[in-house]
Amino acid sequence: MSAAINNIEIQKAKTSKISSIDFDNLSFGKVFSDHMLLCVYKDGMWQLPKVVPYQPITLDPSSKIFHYGQSVFEGLKAYKDTDENIWLFRPEDNFRRLNISSKRLSIPELPEDYFMAGLKTLLQVDRDWIPKSEGSSLYIRPFVFASGNGFHASPADEYMFIIATAPSGSYFSGKLKVLIEQTYSRSANGGVGFAKAGGNYAGQFYPTQLAVEKGYQQVIWTDDTTHEYIEEAGAMNIFVRINDTLITAPISDRILDGITRRSILEIAKTENIPVEVRKISVKEVVEASKNGTLKEMFGAGTAAVISPIAAFGHEDKDYDLPTLENSYGALLKKRITDIQTNKSEDPFGWRVKV
Amino acid sequence: MSAAINNIEIQKAKTSKISSIDFDNLSFGKVFSDHMLLCVYKDGMWQLPKVVPYQPITLDPSSKIFHYGQSVFEGLKAYKDTDENIWLFRPEDNFRRLNISSKRLSIPELPEDYFMAGLKTLLQVDRDWIPKSEGSSLYIRPFVFASGNGFHASPADEYMFIIATAPSGSYFSGKLKVLIEQTYSRSANGGVGFAKAGGNYAGQFYPTQLAVEKGYQQVIWTDDTTHEYIEEAGAMNIFVRINDTLITAPISDRILDGITRRSILEIAKTENIPVEVRKISVKEVVEASKNGTLKEMFGAGTAAVISPIAAFGHEDKDYDLPTLENSYGALLKKRITDIQTNKSEDPFGWRVKV
Repeated sequence: MSAAINNIEIQKAKTSKISSIDFDNLSFGKVFSDHMLLCVYKDGMWQLPKVVPYQPITLDPSSKIFHYGQSVFEGLKAYKDTDENIWLFRPEDNFRRLNISSKRLSIPELPEDYFMAGLKTLLQVDRDWIPKSEGSSLYIRPFVFASGNGFHASPADEYMFIIATAPSGSYFSGKLKVLIEQTYSRSANGGVGFAKAGGNYAGQFYPTQLAVEKGYQQVIWTDDTTHEYIEEAGAMNIFVRINDTLITAPISDRILDGITRRSILEIAKTENIPVEVRKISVKEVVEASKNGTLKEMFGAGTAAVISPIAAFGHEDKDYDLPTLENSYGALLKKRITDIQTNKSEDPFGWRVKV
Repeated sequence: MSAAINNIEIQKAKTSKISSIDFDNLSFGKVFSDHMLLCVYKDGMWQLPKVVPYQPITLDPSSKIFHYGQSVFEGLKAYKDTDENIWLFRPEDNFRRLNISSKRLSIPELPEDYFMAGLKTLLQVDRDWIPKSEGSSLYIRPFVFASGNGFHASPADEYMFIIATAPSGSYFSGKLKVLIEQTYSRSANGGVGFAKAGGNYAGQFYPTQLAVEKGYQQVIWTDDTTHEYIEEAGAMNIFVRINDTLITAPISDRILDGITRRSILEIAKTENIPVEVRKISVKEVVEASKNGTLKEMFGAGTAAVISPIAAFGHEDKDYDLPTLENSYGALLKKRITDIQTNKSEDPFGWRVKV
């Protein structure tokens, strides 16, 4: 199934949009590079991927993506160093997680080569689209969706795998205030919360809107049975620092196995930061805030990188986090972005040159 | 917002596919009528709906439907009686539920007129597509999805509402054997299980495939906290008859408020069938099967109508249901389809003439 592919077919765009892009004022995921990788599943197998001009997709109205939410995605970033080298961060982990998500959604798994060789070829073709300025990067969005037709509620017989890229600035702006959710839930035990499945995100929009109306930007999800334990924030995993210990919830079938989360845990060890991976109760966090032992909270994810949380809300009360001179968040963010952008050694072997 | 619309613009298809369709051998949702209703949300409002030729949809690769599963749908049927009159069954209930689903998914709600007048106009244009043979009908699929662009995980700014139709035969074929699920779950407390959201369906495909490999066609979902209580079957609500009492689970934020389910409860009352709407434990059903008091189980839904269950599996054991001469399922199916197809009086006022 996974025969090595040496050459990816490239169909070049006739004109480039790049001169119309203001690289000094990039928002997140709103402008798209000239090309995309396109790979089609039909007749029971993934066909060879191709680099093609970024172009609209045409589908039948009965295409299952419109009806049954059969889709998964990934998010990673490409960075360019001062010598114009292009770097990826743990891309094989994204590939593996994409297939884990696909399996749970009954989507056929991709051969590793199609993903890795396809991605690298795409980045070489669109290398001029990778921003170099601090805090910017080329956001990479691999996604797979059901393109096959029919109203029967069952897996499609055709799929599309696409990698599209968008030169992007930061995901959040301003101070991040989050609400610990006590009514709505993100995922069920035995559900698809661990997968990057499209439907997991749409289900968060309404509760997040309600939180936004109260002055928060994001929701911290809790378990759906008791709402007593902190899970994740949808676009990022959550870390809490109580005294000098950094704590994050264990992954489960409800919580995404974040690559940034995993990397932070490893970096923290080498920095001699005491780390605990265990259940975190809402009560514990509120108590720690009240007695002054809650030092930091931050979110961690590819889009969010490490985003410090300035305050959290719980049961109609807001709790401010202190502003630290030497925060774990700032240190860990510097360590991880230095590795990602080739500004430091990479003792973990995470960086991949394109 | 909901100004009455007297005339829906109609763009007729230049040719009809109808002569290529074998109306005597219809499967479910595989061939589509000549036209569809199309209505676009942009600039902050739903634009006027139009009847247009059934045609492909063209979207940007960053369209949010591909990434975040922001979609909802409905299912209903049109029937033609011997006098060529066209009938719908409680279509306002489908409209209301579509908007309930939309709200939970942060999709803008539709004006009632756009749905109802649009649907009726579409059916008049494609009236020849409505099958007349016993057990066949025109399956109607209203759906709304996020067509707006961008990789930010937030609601789209543009949507499409489409009604497509498919002359269809029965949803299930053969004896229906179901598995009571003990590992996977369909929905969370505080989640989107009550909505007809696309993502709810994709999440069921993999556990259903596992059940199919064991010889079952469908999964009966249980609560995600304990797996002790029966919820629904994804494509249908579940009814259990113990002795002479018909029992179904109450609706909740995890269970779809099925229109067929609701109708059956009302018909059963007029037939003097004792009905209980309460939690049903798996243990109770297994016990009732063992001691001979479990008389019937059936699924109820628009696509499934009333589908008798021949056997259920639980913890590696199969339990056969008896074959009854005078089953509630057969009686209730006759009553509801007679109303739907104008073969009987309609004391409930459910039937709507197009």
